[in-house]
Amino acid sequence: MSEFTNVTIVREANVYFNGGVVSRTVIFPDGTKKTLGFMQPGEYTFNTGAPEIMEILSGELDLKLPGSELWDRIGGGESFDVPANSAFTMRVHALTDYCCSFVG
Amino acid sequence: MSEFTNVTIVREANVYFNGGVVSRTVIFPDGTKKTLGFMQPGEYTFNTGAPEIMEILSGELDLKLPGSELWDRIGGGESFDVPANSAFTMRVHALTDYCCSFVG
Repeated sequence: MSEFTNVTIVREANVYFNGGVVSRTVIFPDGTKKTLGFMQPGEYTFNTGAPEIMEILSGELDLKLPGSELWDRIGGGESFDVPANSAFTMRVHALTDYCCSFVG
Repeated sequence: MSEFTNVTIVREANVYFNGGVVSRTVIFPDGTKKTLGFMQPGEYTFNTGAPEIMEILSGELDLKLPGSELWDRIGGGESFDVPANSAFTMRVHALTDYCCSFVG
């Protein structure tokens, strides 16, 4: 178990794909943001604005990054980077807990 | 939209009912705790330790409190209190976002 301290959290959830993906926004003292989110099994494509680092806290999914035709299996404890202004697709096989950092 | 500031948040989600209910724990400077949670449609019975105040941020459910045989319809913007060391049942009809405060 780990914690973020001295942060601001937005109370209301961010809801995507009819609740298949739900996250909460955390704002750090330096103004940077992360979301803590949870995914039900399903297939989800997200568009990015800023570059993102997705850290999978627990769960299992297959990932297709922009420009790739290959699917990579990602599990708990693994991370992946997503470029700015792109799209990535996840096929979520098990309940998946994640932390997404918005960078740059 | 509203925020909690100067708080600690536990990164890992609390997962109940196979992901039907998922929450994150928020710890305040005075040591008190709340959870920000999200419920998929379904029926869920929870046991309480400390007394709880459940604030429904959005969504719709029917609630049966301990000692009652009646179901009350609860919607976004409504709250209800649950006594310590008891159990309450929710029939969640729509995706429901909530904030649970542990008191006393």
